[in-house]
Amino acid sequence: MSWHAVVVLIGVLAGSVAVAQPRPGGPRGNLAPSEFIVLGTASGPNSEAARAQPANALLVRGQLYLVDAGDGAVAQLAKAGLRLPAVQGVFLSHLHFDHTGGMLAVIGLRMQLEVQGTLRVFGPPGTRELVDGLLAASRPAMRAGYGIPGQGWSADIEVVELTDGDAVSLDGFEVTVAENSHFSMPEGDSRAAPSVSLSYRFDLADRSIVYTGDTGPSDALAELAQGADLLISEMIDVDAVLALMRPPGAAAPGSSDPGEATGFAWHMHAHHLTPIQVGELAGAAGVGRLVVTHFAPNPMDQEQAQRYLDAIGENFDGDAELAVDLGRY
Amino acid sequence: MSWHAVVVLIGVLAGSVAVAQPRPGGPRGNLAPSEFIVLGTASGPNSEAARAQPANALLVRGQLYLVDAGDGAVAQLAKAGLRLPAVQGVFLSHLHFDHTGGMLAVIGLRMQLEVQGTLRVFGPPGTRELVDGLLAASRPAMRAGYGIPGQGWSADIEVVELTDGDAVSLDGFEVTVAENSHFSMPEGDSRAAPSVSLSYRFDLADRSIVYTGDTGPSDALAELAQGADLLISEMIDVDAVLALMRPPGAAAPGSSDPGEATGFAWHMHAHHLTPIQVGELAGAAGVGRLVVTHFAPNPMDQEQAQRYLDAIGENFDGDAELAVDLGRY
Repeated sequence: MSWHAVVVLIGVLAGSVAVAQPRPGGPRGNLAPSEFIVLGTASGPNSEAARAQPANALLVRGQLYLVDAGDGAVAQLAKAGLRLPAVQGVFLSHLHFDHTGGMLAVIGLRMQLEVQGTLRVFGPPGTRELVDGLLAASRPAMRAGYGIPGQGWSADIEVVELTDGDAVSLDGFEVTVAENSHFSMPEGDSRAAPSVSLSYRFDLADRSIVYTGDTGPSDALAELAQGADLLISEMIDVDAVLALMRPPGAAAPGSSDPGEATGFAWHMHAHHLTPIQVGELAGAAGVGRLVVTHFAPNPMDQEQAQRYLDAIGENFDGDAELAVDLGRY
Repeated sequence: MSWHAVVVLIGVLAGSVAVAQPRPGGPRGNLAPSEFIVLGTASGPNSEAARAQPANALLVRGQLYLVDAGDGAVAQLAKAGLRLPAVQGVFLSHLHFDHTGGMLAVIGLRMQLEVQGTLRVFGPPGTRELVDGLLAASRPAMRAGYGIPGQGWSADIEVVELTDGDAVSLDGFEVTVAENSHFSMPEGDSRAAPSVSLSYRFDLADRSIVYTGDTGPSDALAELAQGADLLISEMIDVDAVLALMRPPGAAAPGSSDPGEATGFAWHMHAHHLTPIQVGELAGAAGVGRLVVTHFAPNPMDQEQAQRYLDAIGENFDGDAELAVDLGRY
């Protein structure tokens, strides 16, 4: 992983100061503690009554950011007592729709609320295409506004596309990203991956938080997460999901089914983390605390939850818990 | 209002049959009853913890349609025990973001779930631009798919733009629209309205349902709603909203403030229905039952709810109630 490329946004946002923040173990400021709020703990794309789609909020000394924005992200913000107009930016881990489905609402409702100031959208390559498309989709409404003669809506959005090793200095904290394995190609296939999925590290004044986004096992992510105070990790009970999807009598995952080497079962195994692998990641990175989200299948009972924690505990002996919707960590 | 223009979609959807349905008062088939499910009863663009953004579902003999799709519409569907893959079409009343904010999730998650078949999106002029923009926004994710080599996602969407008086025959029911006054211009201003807002009438086998969408008082809507069995009407407590928005000491709505004739207060009064006006509409149209949605301000207590019903009752003596999120009518 390259740590050379650094995107520094100095003075882009009025009042912002790009300052290197203390690394974990360094001095901590005497400031209001940060909060990482898991707005939705489901794994997409299936929507479930009991859990919202992937979305999170990061609250840093009064600054509010979304970290992924699945369907209903703005509604979930409201349930957390937070307001869209306060959102200064969005960090997208990757462009699967379960992580971006709420973005038309984020951008559109912000216009309709006539929020002033720049919204910054950080994400992998393709993020600009996403935002440009959403603005194109928004144009009929922007032209009409509230139907008040001479009035319309406008958007002030800055897109920052990030790739492996990039870092961004924001107002009092630093963000670094690593490309993880969510779009990794099959072993021996030398073609370029079809997209980029990012994991984020937020080095704040009071602590460091790493958000995996969607990923399979990834050395780059384990390096990014080294010594983090809090690791927010995806997890899928891959075998349980595949069993639910498999018609009776069909080949089992890992069988000799010739389509399987590059099929959906391969995708689930290569591009997501099982409970065991989540524990391996947390253990290898030596994080202080682990919060797990992005559950499938769903819902789970207490017994199943304990089995996940037990599997995680095989490789990680720190504080580990399963996130709940609107949980603040 | 012109009733000449008729859009008939015969055979566009495999198995669909365009059949004129009985008008209210005509014979009723012995079929499973239709359901109109109010997924979100808030008025946008403010998101509230207690109510979801404007979205509804129409269930007609196993066919599922969305009627507006604000932020979190797919999540609300799941809470109603309904599934996105079953959605055959979307009827958009107008293109304000509180009524469309969930559309990236509708289109994107449908692709990610690899749902087969055509999704039909009905709406006012501008709907094609909305859908085209959403597809442009979706392209990075469509190219990547699940990251399985050679795999990607595609969309099969048919857009049908409707204007005043248009009618559409679907599988066993008929839909007619009227342009309402949500984008009406100030009196004496002869310029064209900046956009079109539609009210929908669904003539089903078992009953007729009219959905106002967002509107102010409108003769075209009153005509569309004549004799409907069920009227789903928007309502805003306009004066209460303006009082909340007015800084202390500022001019009151309806005052001599020179900016008011075409400002936000004018918009609220001209483009929305007060409780009294909702009763006037239901009374003038002679509907069988009235269900009110799209509340602002929000939340309301029992006493406030009764005041709304009392105001409605001044001009409508039929069955009237205030919708709840996920209420089935």
